[in-house]
Amino acid sequence: MRETEGCAFPNRNKPATLQCELTGFAAIDGEVWREALSVSEVISCPAGTKLVECGSSADKFVIVLQGVVKVYEACENGREISLYRVCSGQVCVLTLTRLLLRSNQCAQAVAEQDVRLLAMPPEYFERLLAESKGFRSYLMTSMAHCITDVVQLTAQVSFRHLDLRLVQLIRKLSTQEPDSRIRCTHQTIANELGTTREVVSRLLKELERSGHIKLSRGSIQVLDSEKLEDLCLG
Amino acid sequence: MRETEGCAFPNRNKPATLQCELTGFAAIDGEVWREALSVSEVISCPAGTKLVECGSSADKFVIVLQGVVKVYEACENGREISLYRVCSGQVCVLTLTRLLLRSNQCAQAVAEQDVRLLAMPPEYFERLLAESKGFRSYLMTSMAHCITDVVQLTAQVSFRHLDLRLVQLIRKLSTQEPDSRIRCTHQTIANELGTTREVVSRLLKELERSGHIKLSRGSIQVLDSEKLEDLCLG
Repeated sequence: MRETEGCAFPNRNKPATLQCELTGFAAIDGEVWREALSVSEVISCPAGTKLVECGSSADKFVIVLQGVVKVYEACENGREISLYRVCSGQVCVLTLTRLLLRSNQCAQAVAEQDVRLLAMPPEYFERLLAESKGFRSYLMTSMAHCITDVVQLTAQVSFRHLDLRLVQLIRKLSTQEPDSRIRCTHQTIANELGTTREVVSRLLKELERSGHIKLSRGSIQVLDSEKLEDLCLG
Repeated sequence: MRETEGCAFPNRNKPATLQCELTGFAAIDGEVWREALSVSEVISCPAGTKLVECGSSADKFVIVLQGVVKVYEACENGREISLYRVCSGQVCVLTLTRLLLRSNQCAQAVAEQDVRLLAMPPEYFERLLAESKGFRSYLMTSMAHCITDVVQLTAQVSFRHLDLRLVQLIRKLSTQEPDSRIRCTHQTIANELGTTREVVSRLLKELERSGHIKLSRGSIQVLDSEKLEDLCLG
């Protein structure tokens, strides 16, 4: 959400266009909403931009218009774990939490793809909460989903062995690829799961030995998706 | 929140008394709030009552008037992890999440002490959201705190070794006791941390061997609080 990087541009004349993009907010209308859109800023950031560290929109209410934002937690020794993702038309509950608690003590966020964000002045956020039932309902539901997701993640991290979580992730990623070949580093997977690259590499090697996957430089190919599914279920 | 167990009693005549108990909601007043309190039900449950499994108030907005409710996640093989606690004057965000998403797919809750709960019909929850800035603000802040807490827990579970989390918990519990003696079972500690009793017993034995604690039947005595603190920091 830097103002200097990306190509931040005010979009004060196009509330109607914005409204079309905000499909998730279709139930919201009315004068305050249109006014809020007209004074909001549209910020573009290239993939890889760290979003929450930058102070400029820490005091804004943020909606993702386009792209995917990954929200994650990191610790001092460099390990990361992905918490959840915010897609187009969704509220960044993390930014909202920071705004509500006026605190920096929370997770971080990065643009996983090129993103366009809508940054709304907090006074409009307050007014919309007061005046729009649709906005209230959308917002409360977003927060509730976020709580449910993070609670489920906590349970997974506590109860499911890392090897199973890795297999689950590989299955999910491979079904998104036409050739079942996942193109990402072991470090990326480690960051997704909250562990280290070394542990991921060791577990992947074991899966290769057992014939489930084939490892190449920069890619992981799933050889037998059904056998992998059996591992998840077993 | 059973109506049959505990001594559920309607408290329709005492909104003023209830208002005094709800210190966290002091900023909220007005006709709707007083009316909401007058139609809310006060439910008493003894310590140990499972609260969320019982259907009776799954569709109510719940505030804890007295006592402590533990919210936790459990998995099929019996392991548990404590997520957070709801104390007097606080909203049970878990119940709220279930109410908002109309879903049962979330964590569980148990009365850790004898509790008294206020169960408000959801239509008043909606009206308060619409009409009371204080209520909105309290509620949004509660949800934001809940998200922050669970995110921090996820990070702890991912990044901190179990032995350190155990030492931290023992320190915290022992400072609450005048004689630094914690009276609880290894299973209770395991449920708090999301691990098994066997693992807790093994780690406690190691702490005993290194002279940090002394184990007896049903209690754990911290021998050297400063050495234990060093372990946490080291």
